[in-house]
Amino acid sequence: MTTPVIIVHGGAWTIPKDIVEESRDGTKKAAKAGYTVLSSGGTAIDAVQAAIRVLEDTPCFDAGTGSVLTAKREVEMDAVIMDGRTLKSGAVACVQNIKNPIELARMVMEKTSHSMLVGPGANLFAEEMGIERVPTDSLVSEEAVRELEASGHDTTGAVALDKNGNLAYGTSTGGISGKKPGRVGDSPIIGLGGYADNDVGGISCTGHGESISKVVLAHQIITAMRTGTDAQEAADKALANMASRVEGYGGVIVLSRLGDVALSYTTDNMSWAWAKEGTIHSGVNPGEDIQEPVGGYALIGYEYKI
Amino acid sequence: MTTPVIIVHGGAWTIPKDIVEESRDGTKKAAKAGYTVLSSGGTAIDAVQAAIRVLEDTPCFDAGTGSVLTAKREVEMDAVIMDGRTLKSGAVACVQNIKNPIELARMVMEKTSHSMLVGPGANLFAEEMGIERVPTDSLVSEEAVRELEASGHDTTGAVALDKNGNLAYGTSTGGISGKKPGRVGDSPIIGLGGYADNDVGGISCTGHGESISKVVLAHQIITAMRTGTDAQEAADKALANMASRVEGYGGVIVLSRLGDVALSYTTDNMSWAWAKEGTIHSGVNPGEDIQEPVGGYALIGYEYKI
Repeated sequence: MTTPVIIVHGGAWTIPKDIVEESRDGTKKAAKAGYTVLSSGGTAIDAVQAAIRVLEDTPCFDAGTGSVLTAKREVEMDAVIMDGRTLKSGAVACVQNIKNPIELARMVMEKTSHSMLVGPGANLFAEEMGIERVPTDSLVSEEAVRELEASGHDTTGAVALDKNGNLAYGTSTGGISGKKPGRVGDSPIIGLGGYADNDVGGISCTGHGESISKVVLAHQIITAMRTGTDAQEAADKALANMASRVEGYGGVIVLSRLGDVALSYTTDNMSWAWAKEGTIHSGVNPGEDIQEPVGGYALIGYEYKI
Repeated sequence: MTTPVIIVHGGAWTIPKDIVEESRDGTKKAAKAGYTVLSSGGTAIDAVQAAIRVLEDTPCFDAGTGSVLTAKREVEMDAVIMDGRTLKSGAVACVQNIKNPIELARMVMEKTSHSMLVGPGANLFAEEMGIERVPTDSLVSEEAVRELEASGHDTTGAVALDKNGNLAYGTSTGGISGKKPGRVGDSPIIGLGGYADNDVGGISCTGHGESISKVVLAHQIITAMRTGTDAQEAADKALANMASRVEGYGGVIVLSRLGDVALSYTTDNMSWAWAKEGTIHSGVNPGEDIQEPVGGYALIGYEYKI
């Protein structure tokens, strides 16, 4: 029996002062949602989905509600979920007018023979699955409108390990503010923006998508860990490599298959939280590690099974 | 000064007998086109583009003209090109109604700050770039219509090394026959379906996209080569790992930074050709290695600079 653990992030970037507290609260709430699933005996994949759903529904994060706007002032969202037991994954990219892309990503994984659906094809699949269509306006936050001038980006992600030793990860994002319509970064792509393998560990990345892609960041970390490198060292080295090789910056959250927790970022801030053995850790600024009891979290009205 | 070399493939699968010769000729013609660029002092990236353009224009291959059909009997194409000197890449996915997706992929690399554009956004960018819109029917071959019942797939790809030691790779495909609209596999994604790094080597993969993605096939091979494993051994081991871990089959073409050539496949056939020092090698069946002088190839009406 493995000790369950979940780690989440709300993006690595320079977090504006007026949303620092909302970001901190949002990541804690997401970690709690995932931990509630895990500690009631749920699976890693359900915990990841529950955590990311909270991040998508929190307007200060660039995913689901609060997604940044494209150059055409539309919302195009990307999400992925991966099961470390089977290496199966599901992803959607450039999907529009749905509230929780992570749920659609999971349906791609479980209800198709494919691993990624993009654009109108992804929306067609959402219709087939009976997912409600929501107006673009309902996904747009004041912050996202402001950011269109500032070119922000802050992907969300989660990695979980359940009591049976199964790992899963997920990532959800609105991408880069002011992006060309149709732009896809690293986020919805396994190997680049994240990975999960029960034999090794799980990862979710955030930061400059094109740089993360260039160095195949997640697989670089997994490969180092597979040959015995400690999770923290693997994360630090891969981010240093990305900075020196392509001048790219970002952050990662990592769990090893044994439940070791690592997080690292080369940006000014990363909002993160992780929960294990009844304690939740969180931080936004370098060096921060606030510890509290996890406490209860009511998954009211939330069906994490699909 | 490095000895230039180019290798191409027209897909790893069970090639129907009636298109074996057309496949063999097509890969040879593509390798010759790329080799003509290289031997006249051109760059690896131009050689890759020239070779893939030929593969896209050859109807027996599942890329450009000859792309397989989606479940809705439409054509949705994916392509990528990557520069091993800078690690920059450009990709398009689910693009419709253009003749040569590889050219649009290169424009994404060179004329945007992004690395991938998908769906209608990719077509919008094609319009901005002044690329001619062609009717879907002009891209559909008789073979593709027949294959819709047989569920075929056979990506095309090329890897080149130029006299200055620069590596590049590209991949172009119509994906899997009968796919859901919006489906994207490994092909247009660096790290999964291919990779190029001047420090190590270049790779293009073909086969079952979802399996290639699961094991991050291209980066697995690059990583082994980076730590000193021979190209052929790295390719063989990674394909064996994919078969044992996820029961996935396919093929790869590889060049090391020193110009060593490797190719490997776990399917019945792979059409391939490579050219170096005035000789072209080619094959379709296991054990085959036909050698001839490259001879001339007229790149008539073809502008490989963009």
